[in-house]
Amino acid sequence: MSEVLSDIAIAQANEMTPIELVAEKIGLPQDSLELYGKFKAKVDYTKISAEEKAKVILVTAITPTPAGEGKTTTVVGLGDSLNRIGKKAIIALREPSLGPVFGIKGGAAGGGYAQVVPMEDINLHFTGDFHAIGAANNLLAALIDNHIYQGNSLGIDVGRITWRRVMDMNDRELRNITVGLGGRTNGVPREEGFDITVASEIMAILCLSTSLEDLKQKISRIIIGYNKNDEPVTAGQLHAEGAMTVLLKDAIKPNLVQTLEHNPAFVHGGPFANIAHGCNSVLATKSAMKLADYVVTEAGFGADLGAEKFINIKCRQSGIRPSAVVIVATVRALKMHGGLPMDALRDKNVLAVENGLPNLLKHIENVTQVYGLPAVVAINKFPTDDPEELDLIKRKCKEYGVNVSVSDVWSSGSAGGEELAREVVRLAEEGENNFRFLYPDQLPIKEKIQRIVAQVYGGDGVVFTPSAEKEIDELEKLGFGNLPVCMAKTQYSFSDEPAKIGRPSGFQVTVRKLKVSAGAGFIVVLTGDVMTMPGLPKIPAAEKMDIDQDGKITGLF
Amino acid sequence: MSEVLSDIAIAQANEMTPIELVAEKIGLPQDSLELYGKFKAKVDYTKISAEEKAKVILVTAITPTPAGEGKTTTVVGLGDSLNRIGKKAIIALREPSLGPVFGIKGGAAGGGYAQVVPMEDINLHFTGDFHAIGAANNLLAALIDNHIYQGNSLGIDVGRITWRRVMDMNDRELRNITVGLGGRTNGVPREEGFDITVASEIMAILCLSTSLEDLKQKISRIIIGYNKNDEPVTAGQLHAEGAMTVLLKDAIKPNLVQTLEHNPAFVHGGPFANIAHGCNSVLATKSAMKLADYVVTEAGFGADLGAEKFINIKCRQSGIRPSAVVIVATVRALKMHGGLPMDALRDKNVLAVENGLPNLLKHIENVTQVYGLPAVVAINKFPTDDPEELDLIKRKCKEYGVNVSVSDVWSSGSAGGEELAREVVRLAEEGENNFRFLYPDQLPIKEKIQRIVAQVYGGDGVVFTPSAEKEIDELEKLGFGNLPVCMAKTQYSFSDEPAKIGRPSGFQVTVRKLKVSAGAGFIVVLTGDVMTMPGLPKIPAAEKMDIDQDGKITGLF
Repeated sequence: MSEVLSDIAIAQANEMTPIELVAEKIGLPQDSLELYGKFKAKVDYTKISAEEKAKVILVTAITPTPAGEGKTTTVVGLGDSLNRIGKKAIIALREPSLGPVFGIKGGAAGGGYAQVVPMEDINLHFTGDFHAIGAANNLLAALIDNHIYQGNSLGIDVGRITWRRVMDMNDRELRNITVGLGGRTNGVPREEGFDITVASEIMAILCLSTSLEDLKQKISRIIIGYNKNDEPVTAGQLHAEGAMTVLLKDAIKPNLVQTLEHNPAFVHGGPFANIAHGCNSVLATKSAMKLADYVVTEAGFGADLGAEKFINIKCRQSGIRPSAVVIVATVRALKMHGGLPMDALRDKNVLAVENGLPNLLKHIENVTQVYGLPAVVAINKFPTDDPEELDLIKRKCKEYGVNVSVSDVWSSGSAGGEELAREVVRLAEEGENNFRFLYPDQLPIKEKIQRIVAQVYGGDGVVFTPSAEKEIDELEKLGFGNLPVCMAKTQYSFSDEPAKIGRPSGFQVTVRKLKVSAGAGFIVVLTGDVMTMPGLPKIPAAEKMDIDQDGKITGLF
Repeated sequence: MSEVLSDIAIAQANEMTPIELVAEKIGLPQDSLELYGKFKAKVDYTKISAEEKAKVILVTAITPTPAGEGKTTTVVGLGDSLNRIGKKAIIALREPSLGPVFGIKGGAAGGGYAQVVPMEDINLHFTGDFHAIGAANNLLAALIDNHIYQGNSLGIDVGRITWRRVMDMNDRELRNITVGLGGRTNGVPREEGFDITVASEIMAILCLSTSLEDLKQKISRIIIGYNKNDEPVTAGQLHAEGAMTVLLKDAIKPNLVQTLEHNPAFVHGGPFANIAHGCNSVLATKSAMKLADYVVTEAGFGADLGAEKFINIKCRQSGIRPSAVVIVATVRALKMHGGLPMDALRDKNVLAVENGLPNLLKHIENVTQVYGLPAVVAINKFPTDDPEELDLIKRKCKEYGVNVSVSDVWSSGSAGGEELAREVVRLAEEGENNFRFLYPDQLPIKEKIQRIVAQVYGGDGVVFTPSAEKEIDELEKLGFGNLPVCMAKTQYSFSDEPAKIGRPSGFQVTVRKLKVSAGAGFIVVLTGDVMTMPGLPKIPAAEKMDIDQDGKITGLF
């Protein structure tokens, strides 16, 4: 067997095609393309006049484990495979965050022979979108503190400012800080903290906006805190929305890159999948829908979080409707859900797979029965997978009317995903599609949460802390009761306890806190502490990175 | 008389030419060009093989006043005028900083009919250089704090960390902060502060680097603070230089844009002119020198700071030698140096001009006698200028053997700078050039400072505070005695007191503090407090900015 190459080695060995040629292939008008170097471009979506005609394929996954699933790899591979079997397909992915690259994280641009390139650029500054989002976020923060410093005519309560500054860096030192020290001329002392840029509400807003005007209106609705009468204060009251939108004028445009097989890929936006909805931008998805027959896209974490939010937030707000869903799993990850530790995954163990399968089956049930969508399971192939293990998975899934396709795109590129591509086409064209939201807009906040816990998570009920009860009352009084909810829950379990892997039952979910993202248009429901600013590990990946005279990067992943 | 248009209105009315055509005009190899949209490009300097043959023209100015001088406008206009009279000229400017745009500052891309475009982009994110510098700066900060948090094997003294975080925003609230609060898992509590990104040593380093390898070596030499034995700790000891250079791999490449008259302009790098050397990048200047016959460039603030540092830091480190110097003044500003307030500048007042002239004459003396360079005075024309006032200026300058040229590029573009261009060509080709540095490398730190104060500022001597004396001793012991000094002094006076306008005499300069920028390769000499993080005014410019559906920006300036 040949040597296994690293992702960056495979990517660097690949000869990219000029991005203009990729654009030409999908009929992008020449004047809609703004090049960023030779292999990246921003697309002026206002210049694409076609109809949004493509079928949208959502790629989601089982509950994540340390063994990894390969959701992005599957999106890239499926896109290539669809093109291989003669379908015009475009993929739409999230942009990776810069900060975690220097910690322990690998790239977020697929893997093996199913990657988007130029992977170094995509994982670094790319086209500057996240820096622009950071600047807009921090301009608002500066305007808030300056407003208070200059007299505070809006009466902002310094103790109730909810808008935090951001930085695209893993920097635990900035989680809890005090600012405005050093005497009168240096601002107003108060507690503050930085989140990582992807956690900014601006990121969620950008990803849900459909035009500059829409973006500006959403920004003006952002609640930055409360005044001394407990009334919300908005970015609009600070006259911040114009300048912030100016800063985002290019960031709003989708980015076009290519897969290793030179197929088109939109990589745009990357909101958190817990305190936000975890999907790439609506504008990227819709632009792709105008240019292709198939758009393959993804949503963050497992289907309990990602697919739920894709449907109940992104689809609800944008009108996008998926034609089929791919649920990604690995044999290894199912064994972990079946109770095996990491070091026991290489050995054949049909019983462990059987014990882990209920996790996958519950996700299938949600997709097909709760949302009414046709689904296929994609097993992201590993060399250690055993035929008996695979047979068991196929048999069990069959009971739900769902086929299983083994996807080998990581090591074989598009050739490894043909079967999956054909099944996806079959489902999208002939599958029974009874798409439905989980709840209507007007359902009270509490009932929305209860319905998600009962139907999607399989829990027995919801415990609301007294302060959460109070916050729900307040949000409904303020007129936010009709917004969809955005669950901030651990990604490692259907429940709110990370240790409850597999398909837990008999649990209740505790809601501790709620917060409205009035600009993005959803209510964040916190079931525990969410880390919005990561830290660096003992030996940061940064220490091993290098670049030579010719600009060749090593140690990136 | 026709209506006076705003800079942004003039810029938006101008039809730009595709940047490839601008590149073609100066013979840039096609494969050296990396487009950023249609009108901006990064240039791969490694692909330009020609000799550095151009004559370099430095544009500097009298001591700044609130009346304004128009140094950048003169650079742009002179570049256009040189092209107009048949010379192949390229201008090399600094990049403006994003943060101040939202405060009160106007654009920093020239003015009137002497601008570089696209001015909105140049004044906003441009090609992302400053964001990259911010990310590299803040990665180092995160690595420092993480090192301490993970056990501090280098023994860094938490009370003597000199590396600060940066943000490209006017945000006084971040000047003095405490970080690492919130208990054990959230870092190590300590005092900290943010500077604006342009104040980062990374900016100075990038602007003085000649290759990726040189950049990396300079970064590794950065002193981030001291250990408990008072020994310096470097970025290299933290193994940060590789990853930081990776972040700067595109930022190091010069940016190519165009003037309103479609002539080439490199706009690259923008270090502070007090705590750093205030010049655009060496790589941009040198790239331009390979492609043109004339390169027109600028240095920050008045000639006492800008020209002094251009010569004693940038020229010393890079080998660049100027062929002539343009000293920019306005009649209005000379009147202010002569003692008039802002509201009295419109009226004819020959006496006030005469009283203000010594400021200009001292700068002329410095350029011609201290540095031995041929010079011309450019009077940036205003409608209120009186012929008698101009005659006086010409007569007085003549006594120094220096001609005066009235430059009308603001309202007439290149046609308004023909005379200036011809004089510049005459000086560069026939002028007596006895270029010399003010001091040799090996002169002790104290004597370097004393020589600058005596010869350039015209002061009577230097007072060193006891702590400054101690710092000088320490720096010389550490082996930094051979570095050039970088004076951090008010830009509003030859002295260290802003109120002493005109040509003050009988003053002493007090040196309060020294700091080595070991990466950039100079010693910063602080003569007073330097504000490294600006604040926003009562009504920030941000409040009036807007952008419409078509992406057209208003209120930017």
